[in-house]
Amino acid sequence: MQVRPLQDRVLVKRLEEETKTAGGIIIPDNHTEKPVQGEIVSVGPGYRKEDGSFRELDVKAGDKVLFGKYAGTDVKVEGVDYLIMKEDDILGVLQ
Amino acid sequence: MQVRPLQDRVLVKRLEEETKTAGGIIIPDNHTEKPVQGEIVSVGPGYRKEDGSFRELDVKAGDKVLFGKYAGTDVKVEGVDYLIMKEDDILGVLQ
Amino acid sequence: MQVRPLQDRVLVKRLEEETKTAGGIIIPDNHTEKPVQGEIVSVGPGYRKEDGSFRELDVKAGDKVLFGKYAGTDVKVEGVDYLIMKEDDILGVLQ
Amino acid sequence: MQVRPLQDRVLVKRLEEETKTAGGIIIPDNHTEKPVQGEIVSVGPGYRKEDGSFRELDVKAGDKVLFGKYAGTDVKVEGVDYLIMKEDDILGVLQ
Amino acid sequence: MQVRPLQDRVLVKRLEEETKTAGGIIIPDNHTEKPVQGEIVSVGPGYRKEDGSFRELDVKAGDKVLFGKYAGTDVKVEGVDYLIMKEDDILGVLQ
Amino acid sequence: MQVRPLQDRVLVKRLEEETKTAGGIIIPDNHTEKPVQGEIVSVGPGYRKEDGSFRELDVKAGDKVLFGKYAGTDVKVEGVDYLIMKEDDILGVLQ
Amino acid sequence: MQVRPLQDRVLVKRLEEETKTAGGIIIPDNHTEKPVQGEIVSVGPGYRKEDGSFRELDVKAGDKVLFGKYAGTDVKVEGVDYLIMKEDDILGVLQ
Repeated sequence: MQVRPLQDRVLVKRLEEETKTAGGIIIPDNHTEKPVQGEIVSVGPGYRKEDGSFRELDVKAGDKVLFGKYAGTDVKVEGVDYLIMKEDDILGVLQ
Repeated sequence: MQVRPLQDRVLVKRLEEETKTAGGIIIPDNHTEKPVQGEIVSVGPGYRKEDGSFRELDVKAGDKVLFGKYAGTDVKVEGVDYLIMKEDDILGVLQ
Repeated sequence: MQVRPLQDRVLVKRLEEETKTAGGIIIPDNHTEKPVQGEIVSVGPGYRKEDGSFRELDVKAGDKVLFGKYAGTDVKVEGVDYLIMKEDDILGVLQ
Repeated sequence: MQVRPLQDRVLVKRLEEETKTAGGIIIPDNHTEKPVQGEIVSVGPGYRKEDGSFRELDVKAGDKVLFGKYAGTDVKVEGVDYLIMKEDDILGVLQ
Repeated sequence: MQVRPLQDRVLVKRLEEETKTAGGIIIPDNHTEKPVQGEIVSVGPGYRKEDGSFRELDVKAGDKVLFGKYAGTDVKVEGVDYLIMKEDDILGVLQ
Repeated sequence: MQVRPLQDRVLVKRLEEETKTAGGIIIPDNHTEKPVQGEIVSVGPGYRKEDGSFRELDVKAGDKVLFGKYAGTDVKVEGVDYLIMKEDDILGVLQ
Repeated sequence: MQVRPLQDRVLVKRLEEETKTAGGIIIPDNHTEKPVQGEIVSVGPGYRKEDGSFRELDVKAGDKVLFGKYAGTDVKVEGVDYLIMKEDDILGVLQ
C-alpha cells in the first residue's frame, strides 16, 4: 500500500538522531526540541493555482530534509511510521 | 436518506483502527492521537471560483484517505456515524 | 412578521434530535456535542460580489441541512426559536 | 445633534425585549444571551471600493433588525443610548 | 510643534465627559466603558493605494467624532495630551 | 559600522523623556506606558511591490517621530542602543 | 554536507555576543533578550511569485545581519549549530 499526499504535502520517513549526551545518558524526548531530519518518500502534485493546474514542489522523493520537531502529522501505514507535512514546513535540503 | 456535502466538503466513513497493545490491553482513546483512516462516501461539488463555477475536488467517493484525529465534524444519519470534513483536512490517499 | 436574512445568511428551524440512551435515560445537553439538523426557512440574497451583484446560495428554503451544534445565533421571532447562520456553517444537505 | 456613521456602520436604537419568565421573575441580564432587536436610525455611506466610491448598504433608516447581543458599541448622544455597529453584524431584517 | 499623522491616522483632542452619577458621585474610570468624544486636530494624507497615491480620509480637522474608549494611542506633545488613532477606529461624526 | 534596515524598516535613536513627577520622584518604567519619541537614523528601501521594485517610505533620516512604547526591537550597535521598527509602527512626525 | 534553504529562508551562523557585565559576571541567557547578530551562510532562491519564478532576496551569503533573539529555528548539521530563518525575520544588515 502506498500513500499519495494531496496538494503541497509530502510523505517523510524520519531519520533518527542521537539524543545521548557525551557520557551516553539518553535525554528524554521533551528536552531535545531541535529540528529533525527525514527523507522524502513521496510528494503531492503541488500548489493548486487559480486556473486549477498545479505548481510543482521544490522538493522530490529521496531528498534529505530538515524540519521543525513539531512539523507535520504522524501517520502509520502498514505498521511503518511516517510524517505528512506541507512543503512549507521544510526548512532546507541537505546536500 | 443521503447526505450531499456542500462546496469542498466530503462525507467520510471512519475505518476502525486497532488500539490494542501487543498484550491485548485496550488503550483509552485519548492516548492514541494518531490520524485515522476512512473511506469517502460522497463529495461536494468543489471549490467555488470567483465566477460562480466549481473546481472539482482531488478525491472521489471510494477513496481510502488519511486525516488527523480531530479533523471534521461527526454526523449521524439514520443511526450511522460519519464525518464531514473539508478536502483540505485530508492528508493523503491510500493506494 | 418575517425575517429576511442579510447576504449569505439563512434562517433555520432546528429539528429536534432524540438524546436518550437505549434505556431511555436523557443525556444532558453538554454531553451530546454532535451536529444537529434543521430546515431552512428563508435565505439571504447571497454573497456580495465585487461589482455589487449577488452570487446565489447553494441552499434554498425547505432544504433539510446538517450543521455543527454551535453554528449560528439563536433568534426568537414572535415566540418561535430559529437559528441564523452563514451558509458556510452548513455541512451538508439531507436528500 | 446628529450622528453620521462612517463607512459601513449604522446607528441603531435598541428595542427592549421582555426578559421575564412566565411567573414574572426578571432574569438577570447575563442569563439572556439571545440577540436583540433594534431600529436603524441612520446609516453610513457604505463600503469603500478600491476606486474610492461607495457601495451602498443593504439596510436603511427605519429597518427593524436582529443582531447579536454583543454586537456594536454603545454610544450616548445627548443623553440617549444608541448602538453603532457594522452592517455585517446585522443578522436579518424583520418585515 | 505640530504632529503630522502618517497615512490613515488622525490626531484627536479628547472631549471630557461627565462621569458623575445623579447624586454627584464620581464613578471610577474602569466602570465607564462607554465610548468617548473628541475633536480632530489634524489628519494624515490618507490610505496608501497600490500605485503609491493616497485616498483621502472621510474626516477632517475640526470634526467632532465618537470612538471606542480604548481606541488609539495616547501621545503627549509639549505637555498636551492627544490621541492618535486610525480613521477606522472612528465610529461616527457628530453634526 | 552602519545598519542598513531591510524593506520598510527604520533605525531609530530613542529620545529620552522625563519620567519624573513634579516632586522629582522617578516613576518606574512600567508605570509610564505612553509612547516615546525618537529620531530616525536610517531608513530601508521601502515596501516591496509585486514587480520587485520598492515604494519609498513616508519618513526619512532626521525625522522626529512618535511611536508606541513597545514598538520595534532594541538593537545595540557598537555599544549604542537603537530601535528597529516598521514604518507602520510610527504614529506621526513632529514638525 | 551542505544545507540548501528553501524559498525565502536563509541559513545563519550566530555570532556570539558578550553577555558579561563590566565586573565580568555572566548574565544568564534569559536576562539578555536583545537581538543577536549572525553571518549568512547560504540563502534560498527567493520568494515564489504567482508565475512560479522567484524574486531574489535582499541579503546574500556573507552579510552580517541583525535579528530578534527568538527568530528562526536552530538546526545542527554535522555537529555545527546554525539558524534557519525567513528573510523577513532579519531586521537589518551591518555595513
